[in-house]
Amino acid sequence: MNLMNTPYKLYYWPTIQGRGEFIRLALEESQVPYLDVARLPAPEGGVAALQRLLHSEEDAVRPFAPPFLKVGNLLLSQVANVLHFLGPRLGLVPNDDESRHLVLQLQLTISDFISEIHDTHHPISTALYYEEQKIEAKRRTTLFLQHRLPKFLGYFEGTLRRQLSLGAEYLVGGFSYVDLSLFQTLEGLAYAFPKVFEAARHTIPLSLGLAAKIEARPNIAAYLASPRRLPMTEHDLFRQYPALDLP
Amino acid sequence: MNLMNTPYKLYYWPTIQGRGEFIRLALEESQVPYLDVARLPAPEGGVAALQRLLHSEEDAVRPFAPPFLKVGNLLLSQVANVLHFLGPRLGLVPNDDESRHLVLQLQLTISDFISEIHDTHHPISTALYYEEQKIEAKRRTTLFLQHRLPKFLGYFEGTLRRQLSLGAEYLVGGFSYVDLSLFQTLEGLAYAFPKVFEAARHTIPLSLGLAAKIEARPNIAAYLASPRRLPMTEHDLFRQYPALDLP
Repeated sequence: MNLMNTPYKLYYWPTIQGRGEFIRLALEESQVPYLDVARLPAPEGGVAALQRLLHSEEDAVRPFAPPFLKVGNLLLSQVANVLHFLGPRLGLVPNDDESRHLVLQLQLTISDFISEIHDTHHPISTALYYEEQKIEAKRRTTLFLQHRLPKFLGYFEGTLRRQLSLGAEYLVGGFSYVDLSLFQTLEGLAYAFPKVFEAARHTIPLSLGLAAKIEARPNIAAYLASPRRLPMTEHDLFRQYPALDLP
Repeated sequence: MNLMNTPYKLYYWPTIQGRGEFIRLALEESQVPYLDVARLPAPEGGVAALQRLLHSEEDAVRPFAPPFLKVGNLLLSQVANVLHFLGPRLGLVPNDDESRHLVLQLQLTISDFISEIHDTHHPISTALYYEEQKIEAKRRTTLFLQHRLPKFLGYFEGTLRRQLSLGAEYLVGGFSYVDLSLFQTLEGLAYAFPKVFEAARHTIPLSLGLAAKIEARPNIAAYLASPRRLPMTEHDLFRQYPALDLP
């Protein structure tokens, strides 16, 4: 693919899934041609290309942090904002304005959820390693698993239950990008907290059903089997630390 | 005002500014008639009215948490989503789609900023009092003030600097709801960290200039002088704990 002629250019740290993965899943599902710029070779690609845009004086409003997407001259950041932009263009949201606001609302709740998941292993600062805040991490995670995890999981499960009673199969009626994001969040939780997640599975049958359907979508299945899908690791958003995974 | 006939109904905890204040400022600036339902007397108002909607089975997609806004049959939550909905309806965003995405992007960066500010006094859990996590709060706040506060303040200041060089006065060119939100965030920081904020003032002349302009807008000035503007307290989002305010 040619860097100049491909309309969608994604910029994100090249060695992790992170927050970029929520945008990547939407691009992969829609099969639109896109470039994952920081994963391409320099000088056009690489982290240097990402850093150049992050510190450019060209755009008055520039990203605070990756991921960001360049479409023509428009440079957009914040995962939920990027997905809200892509949704109608890639057919990843229902057609009406009200539904699009509800999809954005749920996506922002996913953002809150993953921020809290991130902070289980970094409760003090991203300027410190996990090992430098593991005592606080244990305290935060224990309360997160007790109070917040059931509340978030129950919220999405309840949404699906009410949709099902209206005859709908997805979080906002028709399929949308937030269904992809819930799938990714559940994948991350299953990785980070295998014991706790196993114990919680019986409480979220509809969410797991949705995740299985997403995983089986042909474009998603092909992506997950490809080398583009990086493995989860302890340098990423979702981290598996056995000391934190206590049901 | 009549509860039934007023188009915009805001629901938020009645005794604090909190995250509801970002929506309240937009409603006040636009002078649209609205009801602050949880501040009205029961049975139509009060916290019970808020709780009823939060646990209602009527809306398939319901709020995860306050604040939320009811407009006709539409129930919307997540501050940035509500503001993105109100923006074009209340004349609080520029007219083009690209600018609206950039306003939303900056608003989401404000959301991240205030979440980090909140977590300075609650680094472990919202299920615990500050007093139960003050040691961790001190550690988190020290690193927040050192690394994150300058980064966020510098980000908005740089945005204003680049806009100014294009002849624009606001964060996204024309006036928008995110200018109100930056004003509120700076007010909160000045309250929570008076010493640190005083020391930082010389680094953000353009942001302070914008805040002064917002404060002088007639509808905002009238609101700030009214009893509807509650004082900041230590039960709120921005909290003044002298132990944390060390430059």
